[in-house]
Amino acid sequence: MLSNHLQNGIETARLVWSRLPNSDDEALDEVGLSKKSDGSRSESLDYEVIENNAYREEQAQRGKLMVGYYVGVKWFFALLIGIGTGLAAVFINISVENFAGWKFQLTFSIIQKSYVAGFLVYILFNLLLVFSSVYIVTQFAPAAAGSGIPEIKGYLNGVDTHGILLFRTLIGKIFGSIGSVGGGLALGKEGPLVHTGACIASLLGQGGSTKYHLSSRWLQVFKTDRDRRDLVTCGCAAGVAAAFRAPVGGVLFALEEVTSWWRSQLMWRVFFTSAVVAVVVRTAMGWCKSGKCGHFGSGGFIIWDISDGQEDYSFEELLPMAIIGVIGGLLGALFNQLTLYITYWRRNYLHKKGSRVKMIEVCLVSLITSVISFGLPLLRKCSPCPEVELNSSIECPRPPGMYGNYVNFYCGKDKEYNDLATIFFNTQDDAIRNLFSAKTIHEYSAQSLLTFLVMFYSLAVVTFGTAVPAGQFVPGIMIGSTYGRLVGMFVVNFYKKLNIEEGTYALLGAASFLGGSMRMTVSLCVIMVEITNNLKLLPLIMLVLLISKAVGDAFNEGLYEEQARLRGIPLLESRPKYQMRKMTAKEACGNKKVVYFPRVVKVADVVSILQSNEHNGFPVIDHTRNGESLVIGLMLRSHLLVLLQSKVDFQHSPLPSDPRGGGKPISKGISIDDIHLSSDDLEMYIDLAPFLNPSPYVVPEDMSLSKVYNLFRQLGLRHILVVPRASRVIGLITRKDLLIEDNENSETVELQSTSSSTAR
Amino acid sequence: MLSNHLQNGIETARLVWSRLPNSDDEALDEVGLSKKSDGSRSESLDYEVIENNAYREEQAQRGKLMVGYYVGVKWFFALLIGIGTGLAAVFINISVENFAGWKFQLTFSIIQKSYVAGFLVYILFNLLLVFSSVYIVTQFAPAAAGSGIPEIKGYLNGVDTHGILLFRTLIGKIFGSIGSVGGGLALGKEGPLVHTGACIASLLGQGGSTKYHLSSRWLQVFKTDRDRRDLVTCGCAAGVAAAFRAPVGGVLFALEEVTSWWRSQLMWRVFFTSAVVAVVVRTAMGWCKSGKCGHFGSGGFIIWDISDGQEDYSFEELLPMAIIGVIGGLLGALFNQLTLYITYWRRNYLHKKGSRVKMIEVCLVSLITSVISFGLPLLRKCSPCPEVELNSSIECPRPPGMYGNYVNFYCGKDKEYNDLATIFFNTQDDAIRNLFSAKTIHEYSAQSLLTFLVMFYSLAVVTFGTAVPAGQFVPGIMIGSTYGRLVGMFVVNFYKKLNIEEGTYALLGAASFLGGSMRMTVSLCVIMVEITNNLKLLPLIMLVLLISKAVGDAFNEGLYEEQARLRGIPLLESRPKYQMRKMTAKEACGNKKVVYFPRVVKVADVVSILQSNEHNGFPVIDHTRNGESLVIGLMLRSHLLVLLQSKVDFQHSPLPSDPRGGGKPISKGISIDDIHLSSDDLEMYIDLAPFLNPSPYVVPEDMSLSKVYNLFRQLGLRHILVVPRASRVIGLITRKDLLIEDNENSETVELQSTSSSTAR
Repeated sequence: MLSNHLQNGIETARLVWSRLPNSDDEALDEVGLSKKSDGSRSESLDYEVIENNAYREEQAQRGKLMVGYYVGVKWFFALLIGIGTGLAAVFINISVENFAGWKFQLTFSIIQKSYVAGFLVYILFNLLLVFSSVYIVTQFAPAAAGSGIPEIKGYLNGVDTHGILLFRTLIGKIFGSIGSVGGGLALGKEGPLVHTGACIASLLGQGGSTKYHLSSRWLQVFKTDRDRRDLVTCGCAAGVAAAFRAPVGGVLFALEEVTSWWRSQLMWRVFFTSAVVAVVVRTAMGWCKSGKCGHFGSGGFIIWDISDGQEDYSFEELLPMAIIGVIGGLLGALFNQLTLYITYWRRNYLHKKGSRVKMIEVCLVSLITSVISFGLPLLRKCSPCPEVELNSSIECPRPPGMYGNYVNFYCGKDKEYNDLATIFFNTQDDAIRNLFSAKTIHEYSAQSLLTFLVMFYSLAVVTFGTAVPAGQFVPGIMIGSTYGRLVGMFVVNFYKKLNIEEGTYALLGAASFLGGSMRMTVSLCVIMVEITNNLKLLPLIMLVLLISKAVGDAFNEGLYEEQARLRGIPLLESRPKYQMRKMTAKEACGNKKVVYFPRVVKVADVVSILQSNEHNGFPVIDHTRNGESLVIGLMLRSHLLVLLQSKVDFQHSPLPSDPRGGGKPISKGISIDDIHLSSDDLEMYIDLAPFLNPSPYVVPEDMSLSKVYNLFRQLGLRHILVVPRASRVIGLITRKDLLIEDNENSETVELQSTSSSTAR
Repeated sequence: MLSNHLQNGIETARLVWSRLPNSDDEALDEVGLSKKSDGSRSESLDYEVIENNAYREEQAQRGKLMVGYYVGVKWFFALLIGIGTGLAAVFINISVENFAGWKFQLTFSIIQKSYVAGFLVYILFNLLLVFSSVYIVTQFAPAAAGSGIPEIKGYLNGVDTHGILLFRTLIGKIFGSIGSVGGGLALGKEGPLVHTGACIASLLGQGGSTKYHLSSRWLQVFKTDRDRRDLVTCGCAAGVAAAFRAPVGGVLFALEEVTSWWRSQLMWRVFFTSAVVAVVVRTAMGWCKSGKCGHFGSGGFIIWDISDGQEDYSFEELLPMAIIGVIGGLLGALFNQLTLYITYWRRNYLHKKGSRVKMIEVCLVSLITSVISFGLPLLRKCSPCPEVELNSSIECPRPPGMYGNYVNFYCGKDKEYNDLATIFFNTQDDAIRNLFSAKTIHEYSAQSLLTFLVMFYSLAVVTFGTAVPAGQFVPGIMIGSTYGRLVGMFVVNFYKKLNIEEGTYALLGAASFLGGSMRMTVSLCVIMVEITNNLKLLPLIMLVLLISKAVGDAFNEGLYEEQARLRGIPLLESRPKYQMRKMTAKEACGNKKVVYFPRVVKVADVVSILQSNEHNGFPVIDHTRNGESLVIGLMLRSHLLVLLQSKVDFQHSPLPSDPRGGGKPISKGISIDDIHLSSDDLEMYIDLAPFLNPSPYVVPEDMSLSKVYNLFRQLGLRHILVVPRASRVIGLITRKDLLIEDNENSETVELQSTSSSTAR
């Protein structure tokens, strides 16, 4: 039996544990948690029972109110995340489209007179935009570089990367990606938008940014990791929904690619957020249609509507489609491997030399990109326009300053166009639209497509990992649709009689490259369907993705996993490793000595223990009256630091104190070195019982490590205590014990005792 | 320390535990599990270490081969499930369409002469089909009644309902739903198809049906519950994919609605299965297009293509759409409540009287349905055909014996049609197509729609729960699209200037009713988009679903949950109940005495214990040499029964035996009463150590019950042992301890020690 003072301590612990941050517990578990009385205690102290019941009811009332408020805030935040991310996406798109629009308009008007002057203006314009981006990122928000998806993935897996969800990162991400995408680099704005959504969600979860005094106490109801993670999951989905105008794709992306823990209630909220984004973006685009947003309107959000394309497919086409899948898998895996090497080299050699090197690097990449995208089309001979069909809305060459196919660039005659310029000397969105376009058979020569593929692939590899916000979706679609269209051209020539559109193959190519590189499946499939607005190609996209992912998986891991690993984000995969099956929990702990605290501990001891190791959790062990030792809970380093900093819970006596309540103000990120204690303080004691987590998860020492892994991974834990085998069993909990009916309508429903665990 | 013989026992247990069915462990955990040596033991017995290592390597090799085979079979099964479910769906559809086609053709040809004769033929035809269905179900496969989704949900939640996944249930489901749907009852074939897919998957998982000698030992690699559940999940997705030709919807349905445990690897396999289904169904339909399948071809699979419908929507339309959402929530909740009452009453009064009553009941329902669907249109006055537009492909009245709008039924003049007959006297698929149809404004009168709504709603409520296979999707769509179109008519009249299609409102109505009744969200949304082949309405469907689900949730639970509860399937929700936060694990066990076994137990004792209670798991407790007791594992009733039946592990000595291997043939569903033992047998002993699960999950006695619930639910457990608090901590496992790198490429990747648990 537990001794009485111990019991007291544990009880109070239940009370106060709820007020401390960062616990392993379920969110609602804590909000509603209140002073509870243990069964064993109520039995021995009968006179307390009635009082306790009244108290319980009152607490339950208050708890329910709190839960209601909490749920309301959750949904309100989902709404805000949707609106915020939608607006951010609209802002980024309008800015990028306008910068790019001015750039191309200016260049086109100058090259009517001089190609050299146009070239210089084009280079300078790009350089300026790219420099603004890299300057913001390196000087102001270093965590905004890259796509951010590996870091978000890590966060949702339980690993914090420093600065990843700050307000300055949000700002850096938004303005940085305007510069880098507007500057014509081989990167996209979609990954950064996911990160943007996650930042918005996280800031809301903290009740605003404390540093910039934008916070409100009323909104600070989310104290637990799990709640924050849920919000960030919503943010990710909102980001994808906004980037591709693909609400269902967003939900699936959040589900498949980023979250590690998922509950179906969360799905509903994520779905709501995505729907809000869809409405916000649609409204904004409707507003822009009247021409209020400058160049934005005809370009902008990627919706490559190919609904007037190929409707049907024949079995003969499955072979070339499978080939596209294989190519996608190979090129995708190669992309992952190359970027891995380059990022590794960059991190260990180049970026160690400071932010000036980073800036020079990005500017160089911008210069090369500009030279290639302007210079290569110059070398290419123009082709005569195809004969104009009646009813065709596609003009050749397109009118200057407009978007569309058949770009007239450095062509002698009027009725000519430059096929390389059509895809190279254009914004990426327009290039993709041109590649996907139907009814434009033989627009591109194989030579141009091949040149573009090689050059753009190289540019994308080199650009990846520079210090600007960079997404891989759009470059991936560019690369994939280029070789897809190439295959499509051969198919058109080979199977002459069929109604085949090269654009369809371009779409499949895009899907295959993304599948081969990112290894997403269902979400990617839905995103592709949503951005092309064509459901009929779904089975084909599925087929191509299956092949490309399988091929890619034979070589390496997905892009995000590789990058996360390289960045030192220790992602826990959903499966235990093979060798874990033969290890026990005890072996996993190794020979490390367990550092534990007694229940009442001297402040000096706490300080020296915290200084001498880097553990984040400490078991607390107490002794019962008859001398047995007993593990009474787990104390986190962060909680100890809060206690040391506030000092109000210090006591002079080395005996357990009376149970007290009182939450602590939570200060994040304090280190033991920041805390200064007088020598008087060091001589005092702390009773840890009210502050520890009284029931951490435990496993017996000889449990198979893969079982432990599952427990850890599935419940999203941070610490598991390994204890000796138990000497006796107090009870056995089965499904029936957990089926507690609500009081209402329990009489109308009669539960049969179906045998719930007969063998089958 | 553990004593030596105990250690032996536990080791052997690891070996043999893998051969017994129905464990709580992860699948792969067991397949690869082999004889392991404990760290502590290797230390004390140094000379054994080398031998052990060689043994380990050999075992690892064999294990890897086994894992490869296992993964291969998994994917092969996914392929087979896809093909099987696709073919089953095609078969059901062809049969239903042909029966219904003959029926309507015959009736239409007879009513040219006599309406009375036509009426009788119609009634008889329906009665015959329905009777065949109810006869098959009551006499041959009682588990095939109803939709089967609640039972499958229960199965995937961990509860077996008797006979739900047998071969005879599969046969009963397929032929039963042909009869019930072909016979014109107010039910659909989609729920049964989900059940069909699950049955196919489960039979494959067992390696065929043992009873019908259709099994193969090579395919019996799936011994664990988890593997079977994964397969059944694939089967569910395949069923939805086949029913609606909605592969993505199928994946999401399996994810959102049926599974309780989900891993992203499974998603990939489920996705593959759905893609296979899509290809199979498409191929079959292509084959049928040439007219080889009789009446199937123009009708059949529900694809209500409304891509020529409304493209855009204005803000003013959001209000009526929200109203549709509210109506859907209200009518859906009412539907759930009414069916709950009727099913309750049926189960407790009507169906207790035997299968003859069930048959009479269904025949009565069929009679009423026939009378209403034939008789009501007779009472309705015909309307004149609208003026024919040029280019319109819709004929009025439609040619006899064809599918389409504007049915001429009991009309005097040539250019007239009966609007009630258009929706009532038709197959449900065609009725829905007619309700969704665009460019047919003012086809229906409000009076007809209202009549139809009331009558069909009542029929659907009454039909639900009868002893035939019955899905609720199509009736739900019928009901919803009727009131949706009704609202649409008012909108068309009210906002005169807008380009509004009544068909769009019918679609939204369908979504709202399904949302209000089944409470699905993302999956339903995707299914609706896939069956209507129109992505543009996605945000509207989302909006309507959000509202209808919220309204419905205010009244009761979803249809499947209600039904599962009524059938005594104890579903564990994904959240713990509110009151669990204040309970401990010990309180949940109550005062039940724990029945445990010693390590070596007398057969007579086993028999008497198994007879005296209904527990399914028993802790096994042994004593070390120095007299301490120690919990060495958990023994399942099913395993004990296998041991008792085979008798080969009986021994004469009451001392622990030498470790032996050897798996047992698994026989399902034996009961203690089936086992007959001689008095000699009863005097013998069994050493349980080789057969028990050596490391069941344990929780300390005072852990909060909501924490226990999460553990139980998230890991899909059947038993948790409640033990006293530990007296000491052997180690602490954190994220870092679980990050074991694979041997390859571990040198290229350098893991930073990112602080994974600083507070934020």
